Amino acid sequence: MSRFWNRRVAALHPYIPGEQPNVADLLKLNTNELPYGPSPRALDAMRAACDDTLRLYPDPTAKHLCETIAKTYDVAPDCVFVGNGSDEVLAHAFRGLISDEAPMLFADVSYGFYPVYCGLFDQPYRTIPLNGRYEIDIEDYAGECGGIAIANPNANTGIALSLDSIARLARLQPDRTVIIDEAYVDFGAESAVGLTKEFNNLLVVQTLSKSRALAGLRVGYAIGHPDLIEGLTRVKDSFNSYPLSRIAQAGAAASIEDGAWLEQCTKAVKQTREELSRSLKELGFQVLPSCANFILVHHPRHEASNLSRQLRERSIIVRHLNTPRIQDWLRISIGTDAESARLIEALHDIRAN
Amino acid sequence: MSRFWNRRVAALHPYIPGEQPNVADLLKLNTNELPYGPSPRALDAMRAACDDTLRLYPDPTAKHLCETIAKTYDVAPDCVFVGNGSDEVLAHAFRGLISDEAPMLFADVSYGFYPVYCGLFDQPYRTIPLNGRYEIDIEDYAGECGGIAIANPNANTGIALSLDSIARLARLQPDRTVIIDEAYVDFGAESAVGLTKEFNNLLVVQTLSKSRALAGLRVGYAIGHPDLIEGLTRVKDSFNSYPLSRIAQAGAAASIEDGAWLEQCTKAVKQTREELSRSLKELGFQVLPSCANFILVHHPRHEASNLSRQLRERSIIVRHLNTPRIQDWLRISIGTDAESARLIEALHDIRAN
Repeated sequence: MSRFWNRRVAALHPYIPGEQPNVADLLKLNTNELPYGPSPRALDAMRAACDDTLRLYPDPTAKHLCETIAKTYDVAPDCVFVGNGSDEVLAHAFRGLISDEAPMLFADVSYGFYPVYCGLFDQPYRTIPLNGRYEIDIEDYAGECGGIAIANPNANTGIALSLDSIARLARLQPDRTVIIDEAYVDFGAESAVGLTKEFNNLLVVQTLSKSRALAGLRVGYAIGHPDLIEGLTRVKDSFNSYPLSRIAQAGAAASIEDGAWLEQCTKAVKQTREELSRSLKELGFQVLPSCANFILVHHPRHEASNLSRQLRERSIIVRHLNTPRIQDWLRISIGTDAESARLIEALHDIRAN
Repeated sequence: MSRFWNRRVAALHPYIPGEQPNVADLLKLNTNELPYGPSPRALDAMRAACDDTLRLYPDPTAKHLCETIAKTYDVAPDCVFVGNGSDEVLAHAFRGLISDEAPMLFADVSYGFYPVYCGLFDQPYRTIPLNGRYEIDIEDYAGECGGIAIANPNANTGIALSLDSIARLARLQPDRTVIIDEAYVDFGAESAVGLTKEFNNLLVVQTLSKSRALAGLRVGYAIGHPDLIEGLTRVKDSFNSYPLSRIAQAGAAASIEDGAWLEQCTKAVKQTREELSRSLKELGFQVLPSCANFILVHHPRHEASNLSRQLRERSIIVRHLNTPRIQDWLRISIGTDAESARLIEALHDIRAN
């Protein structure tokens, strides 16, 4: 605490991201990164952008990237907003498109950044408990609110909502912005992008950090009605005119264009996820049905904190979130088949000891 | 205006950056970019970072980059904060280190983003007029305030304050954060980084966009007492855990390390600036004494808006800011000697017509 911090800073509860240790032979299954490298076309585009033109500012409107996203998702370019990771996109949406006249709503188990943004922006909020199967019940989101954020598939559980449910949610709150955070959508859920043409209150947010294997680049985007996009742009232009570097704009556009690469990588992750889930169930784990590139697992006879520690002793890091309702669960990112085998072997070893 | 915008968004007056047109043979002297490409070592480091490790998140603390900056500026690593351009660094400083219990103070002619941040953060502010010579008078910044932002050299005028003046300012406001925005400091002013050891209320902000020729990369940083840095980190971790990509961290560190390149480029810009100023004075222009990589100029017999338009017809863009007190001035970025010659030739041509 410093006397130079204003009262807002003193009251913050910052988000704590998963660790990024630099350790040899580490099996890193804690932050849901893809086990495969990014599209070679994206890497080529980024290398080509590392030239003398970096002396010039980037296009503040990221026109080419927005047009590429628009084309890929079959929407108009003015329905697209891009930012420095979906974290920044979400922050601007919380800042600009949510009303502080009533509490914002999100699930009690979801992306841990949602309450943090609310703290930063003095936005009141209320968490809605998942049901007994760790699912979101749409009907719980009726009534007065300042806006809604839903991760689909949900963060930390991996459980997805149907498009019917998203449409029902949009109809339940026609006068409030409903943010659908689709960070993990490419791993088996249905995207609500198509619904944004029908519902002017739906803002779909995606990221290149997961299925596009570009967590290290920092690019995210939102798709929605031009009015929502204009609101985001107003906030962005009051914060940082150029959130995306020339390299990020070039690499992201090339990545978005490489649909074949995306298809291939996400297919591999889904196969590995199904096999890993089966193996873990054989070891006595409860595994939530995931549409994401992670699984949330619980063992009736092993404490999550102990398991996490024992895996770490074997140079395997998984995420023990230690938040209400999932204290005794572990979130495991999906790696390669070989990485799954190493994890299963370690768990056998732990059980034998 | 949309019903999904909250009242804060509706009230914003976003910043309008200088245009980035994509036109062949354009002489772009409007956004103070360096005319030379970035350090080759920085380009090499960025190309090397364009590899499969981009699938992993960056270091959220940017440890290596912070240590590199700390070493270069002879401060401790916990005195350094980095962000996605100095615009983001400044935004976090305005958000976290300025008190809204009294108006913030900055000059009436300065960086146009300062009042925009205040709008975004509901921060009251008061502008202090430059004196008749377009200089900042430190004594005008006494009295109750929520904090201070000074660009040194000042944005748009290029006029620099002495370190004595900065120290006096820090002493005038011992209980308020004083932000010294040194975007242009490497072109001839003295940096206040050394004073941050003596004054715990001084936050010095720099950027790689100007003297380091990396406007297209988006990296800025702040140096100050660890308490100020911790405040900035709390805001950052409540907004975006990973503001800098792996490529940005690698390129920025290599750029900062290349002191010889910096020395060479800034020396060239200073020489060109002096020669261009002399030539413009010969054409009847009034030229403010600049320590930056731009000059602010006025011609008693030519309206700035007309000159700007006529230069544009000759594919030369300069900045006509059209804000109070400098409506009839043009801000001209310093390019190469050849670019100066082209500008002077165009002005001769305009005068002849």
